Amino acid sequence: MESLQNSAEEQQYTLYKDNSWPNKQESTNHYKSGVGGFVLVHAGAGYHSESKAKEYRHACKRACQQAVDQLKAGALAVEAVAAALVELEDSPFTNAGMGSNLNLSGEIECDASIMDGKSLHYGAVGAISGIKNPVLVAHRLLSEAQKGKLSAGRIPPCFLVGRGAHDWAISHGVPPCPSEKMATKFSLSAYKRNKRKMELAEKMDTGHNQTKKSRQSSGNENGLECLDTVGAVVVDLQGNVAAAVSSGGLAMKHPGRVGQAAHYGCGCWAENACNMNPYSTAVSTSGCGEHLIRTMLARECSASMQSEDAHQALLEAMQNKFISSPFLANEDRVLGGVIVLRCCRCAEPQSSPNVQGPLVEFLWSHTTESMCVGYMSAQDSKAKTHISRLPPGTVPGRSLAIEGGVCRLMSTASPCANEFFTLSTTLA
Amino acid sequence: MESLQNSAEEQQYTLYKDNSWPNKQESTNHYKSGVGGFVLVHAGAGYHSESKAKEYRHACKRACQQAVDQLKAGALAVEAVAAALVELEDSPFTNAGMGSNLNLSGEIECDASIMDGKSLHYGAVGAISGIKNPVLVAHRLLSEAQKGKLSAGRIPPCFLVGRGAHDWAISHGVPPCPSEKMATKFSLSAYKRNKRKMELAEKMDTGHNQTKKSRQSSGNENGLECLDTVGAVVVDLQGNVAAAVSSGGLAMKHPGRVGQAAHYGCGCWAENACNMNPYSTAVSTSGCGEHLIRTMLARECSASMQSEDAHQALLEAMQNKFISSPFLANEDRVLGGVIVLRCCRCAEPQSSPNVQGPLVEFLWSHTTESMCVGYMSAQDSKAKTHISRLPPGTVPGRSLAIEGGVCRLMSTASPCANEFFTLSTTLA
Repeated sequence: MESLQNSAEEQQYTLYKDNSWPNKQESTNHYKSGVGGFVLVHAGAGYHSESKAKEYRHACKRACQQAVDQLKAGALAVEAVAAALVELEDSPFTNAGMGSNLNLSGEIECDASIMDGKSLHYGAVGAISGIKNPVLVAHRLLSEAQKGKLSAGRIPPCFLVGRGAHDWAISHGVPPCPSEKMATKFSLSAYKRNKRKMELAEKMDTGHNQTKKSRQSSGNENGLECLDTVGAVVVDLQGNVAAAVSSGGLAMKHPGRVGQAAHYGCGCWAENACNMNPYSTAVSTSGCGEHLIRTMLARECSASMQSEDAHQALLEAMQNKFISSPFLANEDRVLGGVIVLRCCRCAEPQSSPNVQGPLVEFLWSHTTESMCVGYMSAQDSKAKTHISRLPPGTVPGRSLAIEGGVCRLMSTASPCANEFFTLSTTLA
Repeated sequence: MESLQNSAEEQQYTLYKDNSWPNKQESTNHYKSGVGGFVLVHAGAGYHSESKAKEYRHACKRACQQAVDQLKAGALAVEAVAAALVELEDSPFTNAGMGSNLNLSGEIECDASIMDGKSLHYGAVGAISGIKNPVLVAHRLLSEAQKGKLSAGRIPPCFLVGRGAHDWAISHGVPPCPSEKMATKFSLSAYKRNKRKMELAEKMDTGHNQTKKSRQSSGNENGLECLDTVGAVVVDLQGNVAAAVSSGGLAMKHPGRVGQAAHYGCGCWAENACNMNPYSTAVSTSGCGEHLIRTMLARECSASMQSEDAHQALLEAMQNKFISSPFLANEDRVLGGVIVLRCCRCAEPQSSPNVQGPLVEFLWSHTTESMCVGYMSAQDSKAKTHISRLPPGTVPGRSLAIEGGVCRLMSTASPCANEFFTLSTTLA
């Protein structure tokens, strides 16, 4: 197995308890002529055990490399982000594609979506079975929609679900995968364990009325949460952004349940800069689907990133639009995470004269115990990965962590500066 | 058949080509003690032929009556809005529930959603078959989610699709309906006609590459559009708002295609007034699902209605967030419609001293050729219905009509004033 050692993993992070954007640690780097771009991926906001940390990091690293390979070959952001997602879906350790959570009936049903900030087109699949890489179906839906209307003026779909989504995928050349091949030893044993937990919890509930109180109280004792949805955000050398997300959904979900990964505005969002918006922004979310849907977190975070201070903007979005959202007023724990990037071509007064290309700011934030991320610019020789954790003693679902950094997209052959890596944690 | 004559249908409407809120025509009315509330429904933005106008109006009238009956019995807005939708779904003339459009495979798959402005909960079903009233499944999902977590801490779903949605519905007591009973003579003959049109269009395309140009050009000549999605918005005497929407989807859609009626923020939206928002607002949309999804029109209209002038706010939302939306920059025709209501308890300086209860403003707007609406307050003896049409010579998809009125929710036994009915049309 490839060595997972890299400088970011060994780096000493500094915690900041105020809201200020911390000092940036600068390092110099070289890059290849005419290539540029940046990718940030996540292997989920949830709980990442130390025992599987290597695998999560490894999946993130490979996903970053895939995206950068695409960018170097001249691909647009939307193609690179799909490539990153395929790699994350293929990992048996993430809850997406291969090794997804099983639903109540012991079946795998996946959600995925992708958004192109350049065309503002969007494609999504929900509760799709028998497809190893749901993101490829979402991507194909997006591509087909961009071609315009179908015969007899029919409008092409942007969102397909269930059997119809599967059949559309096959008829558009996406290879099928027998469902039994998508389950792993781990996902099968988790299913059996979860089923026992459910049966136990239901026995304990016997005699209770299914009142709000009794139903809610069982949540904290027997949680089955396994929220390892995956996602990525990419900016290419032209400043186009794209975002994607893919998920096997909550463990033991009802068949047919569709989570945030297939919901427009909830799982991912990407918008290039325009007259109204100085920044191109891309967001991908992870966590409890219903919380992310009802708060429409991807779009909210994207909209918030148009204000000047990226770190402060994300902090306020996570606090006001998520943890303290009136839409989740009755939830005891609000569980989710986001990865965000934004890019502008604005003049930067502090820039040194030899730094070129637009500034990319990238951040992640989560209210879950941990979140695993990876990132890489096209100038980097390898990806950096990191498992962000809430500080000890803080309460998942009511506290949050924010971390991030900045780099520059290079466009000429002169030496450049990549500014890696800054971190801050703020408690709600 | 019940007589469809009513005063609103015969009323002389005044057209306004500027953006000002027109003078309100006042009429006096009496009401029953302790009852109040208002409902606005639509039987779709699309094309309503004169030959079927009676049936559309009749469905709207009955839907309003159902909602008002619920309100008079003390139901909350969310229950009344569901009752209105059931009536609209049961009409064989609307594209929802009974008589829905058939998909490419000749099957009926329905979408529906409902939102409660009080709890901000939401329920939706997509591509569901064999259920006569999809809105009842959406409503039940909403109710179940409000009860809190399921056994073992599982989070209840807010969105179910396909077979899983059907099975969940049955297990929660919603009666099944054989699919063949949901198709009508009209929907079956439309399917055959559409199939022939498609085959003809595909023959004509033979030899052409499936380029953007050739695909788009076929749209205007052989359109199959039949956009009669239905919806309703309600405010109850306490000022709670709710919204719902239901649709059989586009004719000849791909199996598994989910339209705006099941998309959070796109098909309907409802938010009670709060510290941040002086108005309670409720919105339901109709038209081309993909256009309504990509512009998230229900939520955008709802957000816009917090500004002072309701008419101007809706005009700007429909122009800037829909017709001229950057998300639909490549669409030649942007097809949709909305019904909107808002309600505030603010002091109204112009109010006469004998007028009591909060002010309800209700509006509809559409870029389609026509839109059929009905409305009724709990003080009215019968509903008023209206088919709004774009003025002759204007271009559907690039022009819009806005109409609306105001009334008051009564709360005491003194005589009250209902202000009906104002209308304006504005061209983009």
